[in-house]
Amino acid sequence: MKYRHAVSRGTLFLLLAFISGLLTLVVPSFHADEGMWTFNHPPVKLIQERYGFKPGSAWLDHLRLSCVRIGGASGSFVSPNGLILTNHHVARMYLQELSTAKHNYVKTGFYAKNPARELKVPGAVIQVLISMQNVTKEVTASVSARLTPAKARKARDAVIAKIENVCRKKTGLTGEVVALYGGARYVLYRYKQYTDVRIVMAPEQRAAYFGGDTDNFCYPRYDLDFSFLRVYEHNRPAHTPDFLRTNRAGIHDNMPIFVSGNPASTDRIETLGQLKYARDATLPYLIGRLKDVRDMLQRYAARGPAETRESQSILFYVNNSIKALTGEYNGLLNPALIKEKKAREEKLHSSIAARPSLRHYAQAWKEIDRSLAWNRSHAGELNYESMLPGYSWGLAGTALSIARYAEEVKKPDAQRLEGYHEAQIPNLLRRLEAPRPYYKELETVWLAHDLALLKKHLGADDPYVRTLLAGKTPEARAKEVMDATRLNNAAFRKKLLANRGALAAVSQDSLLRFVRAADPTLRRVLKARRKNITAVREQALTKIAKARFAVYGNDIYPDATDTLRLSFGVVKGYPFDTSEVPCKTTFYGLYNRAYSFDNKGNFQLSKRELQRKDDLDLSVPLDFVCTADITGGNSGSPVVDGKGELVGLVFDGNPQSNSNTFVYSEVQARCVAVDVTAIIQALDKLYDAGPLAREMITGTLPVSPKALR
Amino acid sequence: MKYRHAVSRGTLFLLLAFISGLLTLVVPSFHADEGMWTFNHPPVKLIQERYGFKPGSAWLDHLRLSCVRIGGASGSFVSPNGLILTNHHVARMYLQELSTAKHNYVKTGFYAKNPARELKVPGAVIQVLISMQNVTKEVTASVSARLTPAKARKARDAVIAKIENVCRKKTGLTGEVVALYGGARYVLYRYKQYTDVRIVMAPEQRAAYFGGDTDNFCYPRYDLDFSFLRVYEHNRPAHTPDFLRTNRAGIHDNMPIFVSGNPASTDRIETLGQLKYARDATLPYLIGRLKDVRDMLQRYAARGPAETRESQSILFYVNNSIKALTGEYNGLLNPALIKEKKAREEKLHSSIAARPSLRHYAQAWKEIDRSLAWNRSHAGELNYESMLPGYSWGLAGTALSIARYAEEVKKPDAQRLEGYHEAQIPNLLRRLEAPRPYYKELETVWLAHDLALLKKHLGADDPYVRTLLAGKTPEARAKEVMDATRLNNAAFRKKLLANRGALAAVSQDSLLRFVRAADPTLRRVLKARRKNITAVREQALTKIAKARFAVYGNDIYPDATDTLRLSFGVVKGYPFDTSEVPCKTTFYGLYNRAYSFDNKGNFQLSKRELQRKDDLDLSVPLDFVCTADITGGNSGSPVVDGKGELVGLVFDGNPQSNSNTFVYSEVQARCVAVDVTAIIQALDKLYDAGPLAREMITGTLPVSPKALR
Repeated sequence: MKYRHAVSRGTLFLLLAFISGLLTLVVPSFHADEGMWTFNHPPVKLIQERYGFKPGSAWLDHLRLSCVRIGGASGSFVSPNGLILTNHHVARMYLQELSTAKHNYVKTGFYAKNPARELKVPGAVIQVLISMQNVTKEVTASVSARLTPAKARKARDAVIAKIENVCRKKTGLTGEVVALYGGARYVLYRYKQYTDVRIVMAPEQRAAYFGGDTDNFCYPRYDLDFSFLRVYEHNRPAHTPDFLRTNRAGIHDNMPIFVSGNPASTDRIETLGQLKYARDATLPYLIGRLKDVRDMLQRYAARGPAETRESQSILFYVNNSIKALTGEYNGLLNPALIKEKKAREEKLHSSIAARPSLRHYAQAWKEIDRSLAWNRSHAGELNYESMLPGYSWGLAGTALSIARYAEEVKKPDAQRLEGYHEAQIPNLLRRLEAPRPYYKELETVWLAHDLALLKKHLGADDPYVRTLLAGKTPEARAKEVMDATRLNNAAFRKKLLANRGALAAVSQDSLLRFVRAADPTLRRVLKARRKNITAVREQALTKIAKARFAVYGNDIYPDATDTLRLSFGVVKGYPFDTSEVPCKTTFYGLYNRAYSFDNKGNFQLSKRELQRKDDLDLSVPLDFVCTADITGGNSGSPVVDGKGELVGLVFDGNPQSNSNTFVYSEVQARCVAVDVTAIIQALDKLYDAGPLAREMITGTLPVSPKALR
Repeated sequence: MKYRHAVSRGTLFLLLAFISGLLTLVVPSFHADEGMWTFNHPPVKLIQERYGFKPGSAWLDHLRLSCVRIGGASGSFVSPNGLILTNHHVARMYLQELSTAKHNYVKTGFYAKNPARELKVPGAVIQVLISMQNVTKEVTASVSARLTPAKARKARDAVIAKIENVCRKKTGLTGEVVALYGGARYVLYRYKQYTDVRIVMAPEQRAAYFGGDTDNFCYPRYDLDFSFLRVYEHNRPAHTPDFLRTNRAGIHDNMPIFVSGNPASTDRIETLGQLKYARDATLPYLIGRLKDVRDMLQRYAARGPAETRESQSILFYVNNSIKALTGEYNGLLNPALIKEKKAREEKLHSSIAARPSLRHYAQAWKEIDRSLAWNRSHAGELNYESMLPGYSWGLAGTALSIARYAEEVKKPDAQRLEGYHEAQIPNLLRRLEAPRPYYKELETVWLAHDLALLKKHLGADDPYVRTLLAGKTPEARAKEVMDATRLNNAAFRKKLLANRGALAAVSQDSLLRFVRAADPTLRRVLKARRKNITAVREQALTKIAKARFAVYGNDIYPDATDTLRLSFGVVKGYPFDTSEVPCKTTFYGLYNRAYSFDNKGNFQLSKRELQRKDDLDLSVPLDFVCTADITGGNSGSPVVDGKGELVGLVFDGNPQSNSNTFVYSEVQARCVAVDVTAIIQALDKLYDAGPLAREMITGTLPVSPKALR
């Protein structure tokens, strides 16, 4: 599923950042449905040439304002009453957090027959992109060309923090300065935030995730991977005049379509050297690490039903990441991809070499190579001394954020760690204070596992390991730390965080003490990495981006940056082996695949699907594929037609699309979406949720707003 | 579809023979479901080890006697009344020949509600393997080790012709001496022949060949590729006490199964040099030639409905061959296959080198290389001067056979061309005299096309071209020859062939004169090929086979030789990409694939399938896959369980099985079969052919034999 690879923030995100570029490298004469375009630089001419349709600014504004960002994923308004359509696997973490021993909403699904029954998700934030502003001049004016990469980065960070802070104060909107084209452009994104988010409806997991991990990232697919949320303001459904109307005629072969969502990252600007490094070092390491985590989680889940429920969501995301990264890895193993990449790089090199004014840019590749060499020689340190043991989305990560919050807010804004700038504080506190469930037993197992891992790789005498273990075995130390901590209590966390973290700074909570002891090492490695890798590459990539603008002109798109992008293409099957894969599947296919596997394992139908089979029109399209350029983070993106009407809901890519992370191709690579007619039929016939289908079609709330109090 | 590549006998069969070996090369410690075993050397121990089942001689005899050979394909008795189950695509040529402008049985299907309405197929012959006898000593005793390869072959041919002739005279059975293990073994196969063959039932082509050329050789599949024939004796349904009972419980995952049929040829004994030659020269040439024929046929079919009907069957077989050869070609392009082949060859080489008594066998590879060099330097001559222009299955081929018959029967049996030995005469005459339809317009177009091809490749001044064209344009010459010939008249052919072809020898029929003029060139090339390629390779392969016996022992199977073989394995899906393909499909899948393609083109459902959808249990298995080792010629083979009961009907292999021609693998390669429960359901619910289903289940004829008169 096209969820952004979602694994422990403390380790994996940083490691993933290595192999994540910030720019794009493509031949500008696009002959394909290539590109994740920014809304302030849409490929109007290209779309007009290919599909005879010219998206105007009203069309674009409406689509942009109908779209939302949900954590690392996407969604869209589908009624004027704040109703949001996204994937089941996007809302899944919410369903998990609201589940109890009595109600397992992941397993059973959920439907609030009227808004009063909708379930509020603690800590959830949903954002709408209100405007964008080019702030390149302001950001770069502060940076002298003579600064070292690390100092230049520090100077930029200071200006960016200031811009974001001013934005919040002046407009009330959340500001985010994004480096596009590797820093050749800086753009301020302004978001309206909804912080009252409620779950309206979600199918049971078997229907939403039919085929399970076996079929994940594959096609043909038969998944009802959708869910509905609703945002509220002042305890009433928010008024959202920009929403997507439903196209009831459905898709057809070769129909032009558009996708608008928040792709997290692509690596198309990466140099050939970086790709090879990812192939030979980073990806094999990451996949191995994730498989190790998966095995640990599976052992935990095997203990019983409670443990299964507790670990189901994180296991899902881990499996998803393994499959995504394996797909990328396989893509990089394909000699044709490396050959294509090499050809594109050589073309750029010779264009640079041919123009004296550009020749100094050639230096950039050498700078990248130097950073790779440093990376290679410090791999052990980077892999293990940057790692906070324990579940980084869980208590350990929460503890580190609380400890750092107390420390960072004392510093001037410009000097703080990323994530702790003044403009970022409200969402940080919202996240840390939300009454999420934490599973102490799982946390303990995870912490013990990671401590053992560090001991194994760094050795028992390593200072970091000695600090963490404090003379105990991994198991004993994990138990001691987790048993005593009170950080799982939301009220306690709120108390710690109050008054700029006054109590957090002095609290002797066992887990806080543990992460405080770890933090000097974590910060040392973070600093070394920023100096020798991140900052060097940023500067080098900025040069490459400038060279590309000079060579190819301005009509190029930047690599994905977890911000709203417009992709386009057509609904289209593809040749496969010596046969063909059609552009869509039907409900017949769902039952075929289930019975082909004897209705077992990952292919077991839900009760509703079994009992209500005869109520369905099985020939209705279920999922479909299109050529739109998407990646992780696009999960939940709407697929719209030329009128801007909703025809589908992105939830995955096929296996051949994995290598699009590095080089786009539309021969076989496809974006996979749920057909909106399947959603309507499922609401009506499987889930007794006709009122919700009617709200999508007519815009009317199931009950009058008055009835809502 | 696993039909033997069926293209013009005059050219393609000869060319295919190049890349066809006669022996097998495998590591003898089989860990896989590998092998097409002869019934007189069944892999009893292997099957017992793998599946805990010991096939006894009664079990084997019953299975063998229940199986039939139908031209280049397979089938089995499924009632005691001579009822034969085979593929639709095997009976297709019969359906085509019996079709008229009024009744297109290929398109509409056919069902004889009672035996009296069954349609007799002129010229059809169906054979049952009654016994086998090792005649290696007799055959090789006649051949001095000092003879040249060509002379040795001649000597062997003489003995073989004699053995076959004696067999017919003494037993009344049709004898066929087959060289197994590249001539290290010669075995006399004795067949009982049925020459009164009638069509009982065939589905319409859309159901039998759903997915058309697009899905051919692919999986998952949803084809009802079955048909029923019946053999008669003395105008009554033949009594066939050995027949396969139907297993009504159906298949399940990992169920052990057996396949018994007539695989045409495999190239597993081929040397690495031969495989590379096939990859670099033979296959690209053949595929190109076939595509040219296909284009010509498609242009012809586009003229109108009559032309479409006339060309439909041959076009089907040509497309089938293109896809089969392309699959093999792709298999050879896979470096992993070449690597595996090389490893096996090197293992054999070092075993030979290690034993002084075997070292002389090493010479064999050099002899093969010499034949390849000769082949390479004579490719033009071999490709074009061996080619009789025109449709070799049609009038041109018939004419050449008639002319040669008249000439050959005058010679002593031992000196005749292959195909004209005394023992082969009855079936030859049956084929030539059968009242088949010939389409003169199609024949003319084809002849003109081939004449133009020869002119283009050999040049207008080439003696062969000058002889063929007789100073005319290709079109004029083709028209002249085809307009005047009377060979399309069965009575005329019978008259010509009577009295050992007395009239044929002197007839001035335009087409007979044409082929007589061509024959000296054809014979010259044939002779050169036999001397420099066929005979050399036979001798070399015999050596390799002997070396393999010496190294690996006797428990190895020979390459396929168009004779009855036993394969075994399990019903089993396979891993694919990062997902899984299940072991079976269901009727749901049929409708899914049809509606996924909007019920259009190759994916259009038949009227019956559309109208009777609700009568079907859509969860019934339709097609399934198993690991049994099969190849072209296995079409129509029964799949049986341990009790010898019928569970399925082989009709194809998946794309990954194409490279099994060269090296067997069971990772992904699979044999594709129609599930017998699908056949029963289709007979009952789609075709109102319940009586036929009952005959399969109870063995009872639809009407009492008395009513048949």
